[in-house]
Amino acid sequence: MSLKFEVLKTHGKSRRGKLYTKHGIINTPAFMPVGTCATVKAMMPESVASTGAEILLGNTYHLMLRPGADLVAKMGGLHKFMNWDKPILTDSGGFQVMSLSGLRKIKEEGVSFSSHVDGKKFFLSPEESIKIQHKLDSNITMCMDECVKLPAPYNKVKQSVEMSMRWAKRSRDAFVDRDGYGIFGIQQGGDYEDLRAYSAQKLVDIGFDGYAIGGLAVGEGQETMFKVLDYAPSQLPENKPRYLMGVGRPDDIVGAVLRGVDMFDCVMPTRSGRTSQAFTARGTINIRNARHREDPRPLEEGCDCPLCKNYTRAYIHHLQKCNEVLAVMLLTWHNIRYYQRLMQGLRDAIENETLKEFVENFYTNQALGDIEEI
Amino acid sequence: MSLKFEVLKTHGKSRRGKLYTKHGIINTPAFMPVGTCATVKAMMPESVASTGAEILLGNTYHLMLRPGADLVAKMGGLHKFMNWDKPILTDSGGFQVMSLSGLRKIKEEGVSFSSHVDGKKFFLSPEESIKIQHKLDSNITMCMDECVKLPAPYNKVKQSVEMSMRWAKRSRDAFVDRDGYGIFGIQQGGDYEDLRAYSAQKLVDIGFDGYAIGGLAVGEGQETMFKVLDYAPSQLPENKPRYLMGVGRPDDIVGAVLRGVDMFDCVMPTRSGRTSQAFTARGTINIRNARHREDPRPLEEGCDCPLCKNYTRAYIHHLQKCNEVLAVMLLTWHNIRYYQRLMQGLRDAIENETLKEFVENFYTNQALGDIEEI
Repeated sequence: MSLKFEVLKTHGKSRRGKLYTKHGIINTPAFMPVGTCATVKAMMPESVASTGAEILLGNTYHLMLRPGADLVAKMGGLHKFMNWDKPILTDSGGFQVMSLSGLRKIKEEGVSFSSHVDGKKFFLSPEESIKIQHKLDSNITMCMDECVKLPAPYNKVKQSVEMSMRWAKRSRDAFVDRDGYGIFGIQQGGDYEDLRAYSAQKLVDIGFDGYAIGGLAVGEGQETMFKVLDYAPSQLPENKPRYLMGVGRPDDIVGAVLRGVDMFDCVMPTRSGRTSQAFTARGTINIRNARHREDPRPLEEGCDCPLCKNYTRAYIHHLQKCNEVLAVMLLTWHNIRYYQRLMQGLRDAIENETLKEFVENFYTNQALGDIEEI
Repeated sequence: MSLKFEVLKTHGKSRRGKLYTKHGIINTPAFMPVGTCATVKAMMPESVASTGAEILLGNTYHLMLRPGADLVAKMGGLHKFMNWDKPILTDSGGFQVMSLSGLRKIKEEGVSFSSHVDGKKFFLSPEESIKIQHKLDSNITMCMDECVKLPAPYNKVKQSVEMSMRWAKRSRDAFVDRDGYGIFGIQQGGDYEDLRAYSAQKLVDIGFDGYAIGGLAVGEGQETMFKVLDYAPSQLPENKPRYLMGVGRPDDIVGAVLRGVDMFDCVMPTRSGRTSQAFTARGTINIRNARHREDPRPLEEGCDCPLCKNYTRAYIHHLQKCNEVLAVMLLTWHNIRYYQRLMQGLRDAIENETLKEFVENFYTNQALGDIEEI
């Protein structure tokens, strides 16, 4: 195995760990901001690092289309290309081929599709995906899998899991072992416990540096997701990181950490920054709302991001009304910092065995809602 | 007088000076980035400061519409509102009422107009403009004037100058003297030397902290502008700063400094940052051009901005193709830094009496064009 993972502490089902890569250490539970096109939208990479983020996610689908993996490789890899010297995880591209591309056709061999940018034809197989992720110089390569939208009938999910497990084997075989680089398998199986167990066992038989829980956050709702997370993490090896893909909202993450998940990624903090939404301990705030027009208070008392330290709600509201880029820059920064502070809080609470109080406080504060209007 | 200005050195017609305001010192010749809506588009204010900019321009027209001068005053003034603690100059709003608003009507008393944002009716007079700029807490208030588009017949320009000079007196009378704050008069007169002289004399009779050269950069071309600048600056007092409004391109600025101008503002560096244009010693570059697609070199060798220090042309080209905000952020930063480096070069050359070599070098390098394609 090429990535070292240490579980420093367990507390209930929750784990406090460290994942070692060639580009640095990731403290878990960890949240990975998403840098789709070799940039976390509207952020300088040094600003992303200053929020406490220790790893980014890059999207293989987008990068293979633009600028292309060969170009990134020629420029010295994704870290150098985008000026981010910390770890990078890349997805396989499979999920976004299904959701974004046109004219796709899935076969055992792989997927043919047309680019959503210019219609150009591409073919993505497990082998091709691993090769692209290698060219990108990704620290954590993800297996290519198929992801079924829930709810779905048992037999459909079963067939899909079986193909995904064959693809997992092909992905692992195509991966070139290197120190400080690793590959994660992806558990599928929808909300069927036996299929999840089957998938986990197949992946463990192949052997990976970490295990992702895939096929959630695809519209099934938090209740179903938590039901799956009540058993799925414990089906995976204890001594390897567990990564819940594409999750999620702050309360999703809290619930998943309680159930033994170590890693997360989601576009939520960055995308919300582009739609006037800010995450705070007291729930989400839409800064475009007229109530903020003359409000001289910071967005969130106690937050140390530039938005909260240096500006009033009135100012951010004004920027939004004028469609100023700075609003997006500052809100994105705040949201990523909010997520990183949440993860720090969770890590501290596991270390100090105060997770119960932390989680109670979290829900109490979220339920309060925004501070009183002035 | 409420603003102190020192001419440290003269070299030919060019001057190296210092302008003292409540919020800090401005080294002249100076270029002011434009922060139209209480933000320099796509820049954090600390980043603007890091480029060497010592003063920003704010647009009274935009700020009176959104968020309104009273709100800015309530939030502690424009410096505090936008987190910029260095000097700010505001224009009178008059020019943009003419160019942006709908249904405007100019009378001796002032201008009635409809907001270009929501059609709401406003009235702007010299007294009202000065009052708004006071509320914004602007360090340098500009007189309200009328600006005639060139070419224009003598009598039209003459009538307009006469009204502008009556407005200048009303502006000066409405201005509240405060230490570290000042008001500039604006010379008009189109390209008629005698009208420029008349205007200058009228302004000097009233008495101002500085004198702007208005009514240029309105479509007359560089040749006509330089012809006017051959005489206009020397019509204005030697012991006060001279500010050429709305100028300009790098070669406009070099030509104007040679002719004795001390201050400049222009949207060029910021607007160009949003249209893929980068200013360099070797002329402008459009980074969207396909020739940059695989170019591993920095945009401009020797530039110390984050774009040139940390990224390749290929990366910025990629960001542009994907319409990523970071492209705009980085190009804007580079362009403002380019302008500030140009100003630093001009200031040093005046101090060292090497302006002739500096200007020769400037034109030689500009004529070279971009580095050879790879």
